[in-house]
Amino acid sequence: MATNPDAAARPEDEGYMRRCLELAKRGAGSVSPNPMVGSVIVHDGRVIGEGWHRQYGGPHAEVNAIASVEDETMLRYATLYVNLEPCSHYGKTPPCADLIVEKRIPRVVVGCLDPHEKVAGKGIARLREAGIEVTVGVLEAESERLNEAFMTSHRKGRPFVALKTAQTLDGRIATSLGGSKWITGEESRREVHRLRCVYDAVMCGASTVLADNAELTVRHCAGRQPLRVLLDRRLQVPVETRIFNAEAKTLVFALRDEAEECLVSQLGARGVEVATVGESGGGLDLSEVFAELHKRRVLSVMVEGGSRLSASMIRSGLVDKYYVFIAPKLFGGDGLASFGPLDVTHPDYAIKLSFAGIERFGEDILLEAYPKH
Amino acid sequence: MATNPDAAARPEDEGYMRRCLELAKRGAGSVSPNPMVGSVIVHDGRVIGEGWHRQYGGPHAEVNAIASVEDETMLRYATLYVNLEPCSHYGKTPPCADLIVEKRIPRVVVGCLDPHEKVAGKGIARLREAGIEVTVGVLEAESERLNEAFMTSHRKGRPFVALKTAQTLDGRIATSLGGSKWITGEESRREVHRLRCVYDAVMCGASTVLADNAELTVRHCAGRQPLRVLLDRRLQVPVETRIFNAEAKTLVFALRDEAEECLVSQLGARGVEVATVGESGGGLDLSEVFAELHKRRVLSVMVEGGSRLSASMIRSGLVDKYYVFIAPKLFGGDGLASFGPLDVTHPDYAIKLSFAGIERFGEDILLEAYPKH
Repeated sequence: MATNPDAAARPEDEGYMRRCLELAKRGAGSVSPNPMVGSVIVHDGRVIGEGWHRQYGGPHAEVNAIASVEDETMLRYATLYVNLEPCSHYGKTPPCADLIVEKRIPRVVVGCLDPHEKVAGKGIARLREAGIEVTVGVLEAESERLNEAFMTSHRKGRPFVALKTAQTLDGRIATSLGGSKWITGEESRREVHRLRCVYDAVMCGASTVLADNAELTVRHCAGRQPLRVLLDRRLQVPVETRIFNAEAKTLVFALRDEAEECLVSQLGARGVEVATVGESGGGLDLSEVFAELHKRRVLSVMVEGGSRLSASMIRSGLVDKYYVFIAPKLFGGDGLASFGPLDVTHPDYAIKLSFAGIERFGEDILLEAYPKH
Repeated sequence: MATNPDAAARPEDEGYMRRCLELAKRGAGSVSPNPMVGSVIVHDGRVIGEGWHRQYGGPHAEVNAIASVEDETMLRYATLYVNLEPCSHYGKTPPCADLIVEKRIPRVVVGCLDPHEKVAGKGIARLREAGIEVTVGVLEAESERLNEAFMTSHRKGRPFVALKTAQTLDGRIATSLGGSKWITGEESRREVHRLRCVYDAVMCGASTVLADNAELTVRHCAGRQPLRVLLDRRLQVPVETRIFNAEAKTLVFALRDEAEECLVSQLGARGVEVATVGESGGGLDLSEVFAELHKRRVLSVMVEGGSRLSASMIRSGLVDKYYVFIAPKLFGGDGLASFGPLDVTHPDYAIKLSFAGIERFGEDILLEAYPKH
């Protein structure tokens, strides 16, 4: 059979793809390092099957969708929608592309390609070779964004990095005397906990932990505990600090030449691992830190301050997304700035972002922003 | 006839009052120091007349609404809606309450009371004495807010003060080297011009004018020019500066003992008036400044920076409203803060606000906030 070229989208495709994205989101917090995927099967204008990837290692969305169809013979006249390219390789499960070919589904609509080196267009090619009509790119931007962590991880070879700040309207994260509890309200803090569930790891600097004794766990909502990553060059944070408690795993990064053996073993006795990296610009080499996290299959990291660590991340061009919670308060210019110095000398050289979502949490506002390229 | 007590609102009242508010807004920028008022007359579920206050000194909304009714006999069975209490005194026009009584309109629905000392409930009393059924307080909060400048001016005996800033997401109004052009985009700047039309005066400090040579006029939209108010203690701003051009009137406030006679007359030759006030806390006595503006029937002032003047206003509790334009940019902690020091030592002592509107202007976001009481 001849290879089928790219087929045009049909008017009804967007609606079904939107449903795929909805289904996919149900896997948030359970499927990483796999992507979130949803699938819908439509026959004659009627949805006859739905499925999503529920759990890391479990069956893929397409498999679940196909299994949910009562009358298998209908598949031969159906369209399968899926927000991410079907896989073509043997991983923890057999290739979805083969299953689709085997079930003789004549049309497949895909949100976006899978950047995973073992897929990357091969899934689409497999379907086309089998004579299946394939349309790629329906709700492409939304599909990419849903799995932004997965995409970034595969494309850049490092975790997706989100920066979270909770600041006053005038951009302060502490008063002139250092007080910071609480800037934002309960609803915002609950949302931060919800975000933590979605990220594989949360990260902060030693000074923030020393100032706040932050635990960095998920408490105000149900969900998995992300890995806690502490950047502590000289292992200054005492072992009794809450970030080392048993509520979640913690990984500490220290300077290669300055991590004292006895401190490392004290932390080890608590189940806390210490990884060492080189120095760069007076701090830990962040690219080494993220390379190590990538090696450990950490797809996404939410950085939770403080002001100096955030500034280093921004200056290094490592931030992929910003979550800025803004409380309806002013601390004034004598308060502590959200970010340390960025050496922006002229307005034209500002770090440029673009605002995405705006949401209210109680009395606060959450602005989401992406770096502008 | 016996005085009629307060009558309950009816389900249809809100819709008609919303229409009054829409009509009232058409007077924005033309009616100050009068309030914006709209009026709708309804007969048997049908709008038979509409009007609004169009121009300072011109006929009131009720007069225009009544005049627009074709068949006057219908008024005897109609309801008149108006967002502000009808007046009961002879000003530039005869009392509206008397006209309503004369036309024998049986029911009147009012948004909110008029705080003007010559009205303040007397209009309502006049109607009730005549046996008219009066309902007060339909969309009361919206009615109060529409005329917030007028209300504040009468209640506090000083102009309504709005503070406008255009800052980066991290609360900076200039880079570390002082550059500030441009932080926000064209759409935001156009909105600032639109706001200037609505305020009776715009105000800024000498340092801002010296740094930016700001003209503070309305250019990017049609509308009246507000009075420019410059706070310049020692008359340091040179006469050639754009704020003194002939595009709009300018009033300068200087220190009583430090306004040199020759500078005052140089400015006078350009048509610029200088008013002098005493000192307070190392700067001009702001309460004297606002008392003088109140005397000149300036109902509302928009303060356009800089960072020190804004902080003085905030510390003095003079700010009634905040317009914070936020650009999707970062300047970093080495940039200039939106507001000067506010001496907030503990988060509990923060200046507390509540967010009202959120709007997008191009790539920017405008947050409106009010002080929280």
